[in-house]
Amino acid sequence: MIKTITGNKDFIESLRGKRASFFLCMSNTKTADTPGITQAGIPGMLHLTPTLDAEFISIGEVRSLGNIAETPKGVPTPALITRAVHLLHPFQEIELLNLGLEVAPCVEYFTIHDFKIDPSHSIAQDAAIAAQEVFEKGVQFAQELSVKSDYIILGESVPAGTTTALATALALRYDAREKFSSSFKNDPSDIKHTVIEQALSRIHESDDLFETLAKVGDNMLIFNAGLLLGLQNRDIPIVLAGGTQMACVLLIVNRILQMMEGELDGSKIALCTTKWVAKDNASDIKGLLEMNDFTINAYYADFDFSLTAHPALKLYDEGEAKEGVGAGGALVYALLNGITKEQITRKVESFLQ
Amino acid sequence: MIKTITGNKDFIESLRGKRASFFLCMSNTKTADTPGITQAGIPGMLHLTPTLDAEFISIGEVRSLGNIAETPKGVPTPALITRAVHLLHPFQEIELLNLGLEVAPCVEYFTIHDFKIDPSHSIAQDAAIAAQEVFEKGVQFAQELSVKSDYIILGESVPAGTTTALATALALRYDAREKFSSSFKNDPSDIKHTVIEQALSRIHESDDLFETLAKVGDNMLIFNAGLLLGLQNRDIPIVLAGGTQMACVLLIVNRILQMMEGELDGSKIALCTTKWVAKDNASDIKGLLEMNDFTINAYYADFDFSLTAHPALKLYDEGEAKEGVGAGGALVYALLNGITKEQITRKVESFLQ
Repeated sequence: MIKTITGNKDFIESLRGKRASFFLCMSNTKTADTPGITQAGIPGMLHLTPTLDAEFISIGEVRSLGNIAETPKGVPTPALITRAVHLLHPFQEIELLNLGLEVAPCVEYFTIHDFKIDPSHSIAQDAAIAAQEVFEKGVQFAQELSVKSDYIILGESVPAGTTTALATALALRYDAREKFSSSFKNDPSDIKHTVIEQALSRIHESDDLFETLAKVGDNMLIFNAGLLLGLQNRDIPIVLAGGTQMACVLLIVNRILQMMEGELDGSKIALCTTKWVAKDNASDIKGLLEMNDFTINAYYADFDFSLTAHPALKLYDEGEAKEGVGAGGALVYALLNGITKEQITRKVESFLQ
Repeated sequence: MIKTITGNKDFIESLRGKRASFFLCMSNTKTADTPGITQAGIPGMLHLTPTLDAEFISIGEVRSLGNIAETPKGVPTPALITRAVHLLHPFQEIELLNLGLEVAPCVEYFTIHDFKIDPSHSIAQDAAIAAQEVFEKGVQFAQELSVKSDYIILGESVPAGTTTALATALALRYDAREKFSSSFKNDPSDIKHTVIEQALSRIHESDDLFETLAKVGDNMLIFNAGLLLGLQNRDIPIVLAGGTQMACVLLIVNRILQMMEGELDGSKIALCTTKWVAKDNASDIKGLLEMNDFTINAYYADFDFSLTAHPALKLYDEGEAKEGVGAGGALVYALLNGITKEQITRKVESFLQ
């Protein structure tokens, strides 16, 4: 079942039976090097997480390391969910967007768009992103994009990405402090809080929008804000596959439009996330979406791991991991194409044996 | 299993694995206001049936009323079957054809073709259809049609449509009195008979084909006759998803061709219906098809509700409902794509919980 968060069912129902291309946005921010700030990956190897996620969803193996990225307590990456869906009802294609990686994924035959963007620095010091340039690369990509399928599912893999997203929303003066999700069950608020306060202390009253984004954002957030605006005159429906980070992309778009006195046609954009995000008590995806001047449809896949006994997967239901690598959008795609919860569960289990 | 009624298996086997667009033809005739003439819908709300059917197959909810259309004894609309198939193996797209509705369906994102046709009057008085015009709209639609999928499945929802179909066949001088199906188990022959006799009494020896259709037909029958002829020079295979009403469309096409001394290339047309129609003792779909000068392939889906204990669905097996909303064609599509009787049964049951 697909459940509605905002809007109505019509948009997502109109994508039933349609073919999707899956785009993975990958980037690194040095913010992830802050000890304890994220559990998305292997300690000491966190920067490899997007690289390994991309390899795993594309070819089913991780080349740049021996094992699938696991979080400290052993929560497997949500890339397992996205890969399971791709095996059960394949995406028309998978394309990879290198938005500033330490290590590029090692896969042949798959399109890797290289935007010549550097990994960003820690927001605790200054992310030092060429924000306007990254934004314009997103706009240009959308304008030149040719898609063979009926719509795009856009996922992301950015370790420490919820930290940069929350810092960005706060720096853009949204009252979002209680609305952001984290991949930690016991949100490491002290570490995160400290980093975010450091980041915010660097923002000056006089900073314009892009100066602010340059200091506290990440490449994925800024590029995708450009991508969404670049798609406005294209007839390509897009599913933002993610939780609070994708919501932050929309908050950035909202501020840009306010600055330009423009309006968004949200009729071809939806956000699709997981039940773990939608039902998360520590965040408020609906509240974040409702902070925008525009409305878009948002949905979640009514999927959990209640059908498995595997302890590593049970951790999802216990709130240890919630979203990432487009898992929510992939689950919605599966449900739109007749794939059952049972089938997805068994396929994910098969990767852990 | 897909069983052959006329022709051979080759055409339908050639559609195995192909993608289909589902088109629903919706129209109202005031004939349905005759008390007791049809059970396709909610008493007093019969005119809403095609509207609700369209909403339910598209988005899975009925917007223009609180509940799914049920017949007086509680037989649920065959739209449940079509929706179940769409969930299990989605159609490439669903498009809605407004051929004269009292109330248009309330759905966004789905294409609704509005042909600016009025609901028709009761055939007991005079349906007063601009028959030539409706026919030409069908021809034109077929000639301009662009389809993204491999073939079309054409379903219909027209309350009292079996009455207008039988009246039309008789008015066109087919010996069809015993060959027509009804959605009633105990066919309300008295009421139906009376209405049909009233309709036929208005037909004069001097009436030409379109004058006859104008008096006793319905918009769906006439439009689709045009559509089939308009498709003749197009390379678009079409499945007429229905029983005796779709057979009547072919009987009209046959008379038009006789008038024009034309021939039909039936190689890209098939009729697909349910087992309940194919095995119905009170009607004779094969006999109707064999009245034409041309031959087309016809099939039925070997599906019944023997795997359920749900009393409302059992009524189908008891002959209370037989076909409609493209159910037969949808079932054939499901079987062509590896979906099982068990899966369809469970999915239909899930709507009634």
